[in-house]
Amino acid sequence: MAIIVQKFGGTSVGNVERIQHVAKQVAKTVSEGHQVVVAVSAMSGETNRLTALAKEMQDRPSRREMDVLLTTGEQVTIALLSMALQAQGCPAISYTGWQVPIQTNDVHNKARIEHIDGKKITDQLGQGKVVVVAGFQGIAMESGDITTLGRGGSDTTAVALSAALNADECQIYTDVDGVYTTDPRVVPEAKRLDTVTYDEMLELASLGAKVLQIRSVEFASKYNVPLRVLSSMKEGGGTLITTEENFGDSDMEKPLISGIAFSRDEAKLMVLGVPDKPGVAFQILGPVSDANIEIDMIIQNQGIDGTTDFTFTVSRNDMDAALEILEGVATKLGAREVMSDDTIVKISMVGVGMKSHSGIASNMFKTLADNEINIQMIGTTEIKISVVIDEPSLELAVQSLHEAFELDK
Amino acid sequence: MAIIVQKFGGTSVGNVERIQHVAKQVAKTVSEGHQVVVAVSAMSGETNRLTALAKEMQDRPSRREMDVLLTTGEQVTIALLSMALQAQGCPAISYTGWQVPIQTNDVHNKARIEHIDGKKITDQLGQGKVVVVAGFQGIAMESGDITTLGRGGSDTTAVALSAALNADECQIYTDVDGVYTTDPRVVPEAKRLDTVTYDEMLELASLGAKVLQIRSVEFASKYNVPLRVLSSMKEGGGTLITTEENFGDSDMEKPLISGIAFSRDEAKLMVLGVPDKPGVAFQILGPVSDANIEIDMIIQNQGIDGTTDFTFTVSRNDMDAALEILEGVATKLGAREVMSDDTIVKISMVGVGMKSHSGIASNMFKTLADNEINIQMIGTTEIKISVVIDEPSLELAVQSLHEAFELDK
Repeated sequence: MAIIVQKFGGTSVGNVERIQHVAKQVAKTVSEGHQVVVAVSAMSGETNRLTALAKEMQDRPSRREMDVLLTTGEQVTIALLSMALQAQGCPAISYTGWQVPIQTNDVHNKARIEHIDGKKITDQLGQGKVVVVAGFQGIAMESGDITTLGRGGSDTTAVALSAALNADECQIYTDVDGVYTTDPRVVPEAKRLDTVTYDEMLELASLGAKVLQIRSVEFASKYNVPLRVLSSMKEGGGTLITTEENFGDSDMEKPLISGIAFSRDEAKLMVLGVPDKPGVAFQILGPVSDANIEIDMIIQNQGIDGTTDFTFTVSRNDMDAALEILEGVATKLGAREVMSDDTIVKISMVGVGMKSHSGIASNMFKTLADNEINIQMIGTTEIKISVVIDEPSLELAVQSLHEAFELDK
Repeated sequence: MAIIVQKFGGTSVGNVERIQHVAKQVAKTVSEGHQVVVAVSAMSGETNRLTALAKEMQDRPSRREMDVLLTTGEQVTIALLSMALQAQGCPAISYTGWQVPIQTNDVHNKARIEHIDGKKITDQLGQGKVVVVAGFQGIAMESGDITTLGRGGSDTTAVALSAALNADECQIYTDVDGVYTTDPRVVPEAKRLDTVTYDEMLELASLGAKVLQIRSVEFASKYNVPLRVLSSMKEGGGTLITTEENFGDSDMEKPLISGIAFSRDEAKLMVLGVPDKPGVAFQILGPVSDANIEIDMIIQNQGIDGTTDFTFTVSRNDMDAALEILEGVATKLGAREVMSDDTIVKISMVGVGMKSHSGIASNMFKTLADNEINIQMIGTTEIKISVVIDEPSLELAVQSLHEAFELDK
């Protein structure tokens, strides 16, 4: 008998039939002999409906009152799901965030969980009940105010509950059946991964394979909660996200590369012919950061004539704003030229195997060269190699890398 | 500066515009220098929507989960109204039932308020804020469960808050502008009463002048909370419901009769020629009560031949069921005949003046006689005289009594 926390998002509980389907799924896990805690979101559409009402009341609705308003969404779901479970002969009880209690700090709309008291839940599990907990919400202990955790909050609730209850697994039900080696729309041969490490998942998630909220993966990693991504519609074991240490012997032959992520939301900015003096990087990038523009990859090439070239990437939406700032800076620094390019993409190969294996980077570069794809920028971390290439080459690049590294095997 | 509790029902907060209208009304009271606590219901239609969802989940939805589900209705309203108040420059804060807390017993769906801690509210009032409290809901302190107060619960919340805060007045905003001497649809000359006592209101309410929930009037009477019924749409002072002692000097000339209530929901049952022996009343009425049929007026006439006749009234819906029971009883008792009549009505004149004035009953009977209206039954309490007459005479009776007792003056 294991303690399992299952999380179902808004689409999975979007109407009466869906909620009944979720109840069936939960009852099945119970019938397999497990103790089950369920974390749920508001029914899809409900948050938008309530937000629209709020905006009719106040141009910038009070953050405190928004939390009071929006948390009714999950409260409706926990009541309905508990009823659906009971109707299927599965004893169940609902808890709002404040009832558990899920204690947070007092930052309305994006509170952080500080402590979960698992006693009530454990008692109810001991009485043979499924405990249905409202996701996304908590209580600021000092003020007694209702709080919400912000985007992806229900995933975080599920992981935090798992940590507090020392659950054996936290299962996140979504509309995909797991994490893939890459986007199947680009590479039809993309395979579902059985396991992936927290670190790999963080790199894959932040690079566009949007399955889980980054924050909940960080949380799971911190508390070492085994996290499983599953489809709420399709049968299957999904993808288990855990530490490398938890991989069994069968994983000895785990491939070096877990997946290939890519992002089209990239633009490149170049400041060419800058007099090469200390502090020049800060003078160029400081004003861009000050304008709240996030800078991703950065490259500096030293020229032969005592000047240097700076190249960096930003989100496409930010390119024009960054360009304007750079043109001012370039004049001041005496740079030769400022250029921009929003027809680039970033491709990243992610795998913990890289830590202990050399040759992956050169194999990647060779594959791209064989396909006559020019690499514009390169960046690496311990478990990731990213390259920037021309947008039109994206599909060929991902497909050929997927094949070269035998991710379809 | 007074503390005023204002209650707005579902229709008054039925949509965005209505809520903004309520906010204006509250802000006006604040601008007059008062501290205001507002109790609100769910937006009209919301409770029905949620109940329908619950019934799709479970044939007889769990009472505990129904409370979790339905209390979201008022929670939405308190958030929206607080936003609307803030948008009008009136500082406001919302509280759910558990936040106040409004402590109840643990009877789900019809809990009773046991204690209200007014400290948080008093603090917020002291900071110049309007406090918007969710009506109809509370928290069962032992279990920490969410509870609801049952029908008319928001009126009860408002009165209980008034008692806990020692408020100067509890104002119930409804779709009528006060309590009338009788139904204006029957007597166009019916006048709005400026004041009426709790006892009178209880008699008038239970007799069909459906303005306030009886329970909240009982509550107000018990804690001596001055209660005012007002229209949320129309300007005007409404009707103040309080104790006789609170009436000022100007009320010395208060009329003997406050109002005339009537009910069409009446049926008469007669058991004739019953052998007159001790215990016979119980033998006849016991089985009717056991079937959960409420008996209203009862008359027993002793005959000359050692038999007696029983006559009593029940709700029209219950007449057939009562008749069936009586036919069995009558055979057993050797009664001569059982008869029923569902074309009767009850008219009641209510007024605390009756306590100290005689002649009201005879004046009533004379008025009816002058209009050739036959009285079938008579019943009296300290402040009420009720008569049962033929239904077709209802309007003539009420109109002539209204005129005879100068209620239009």
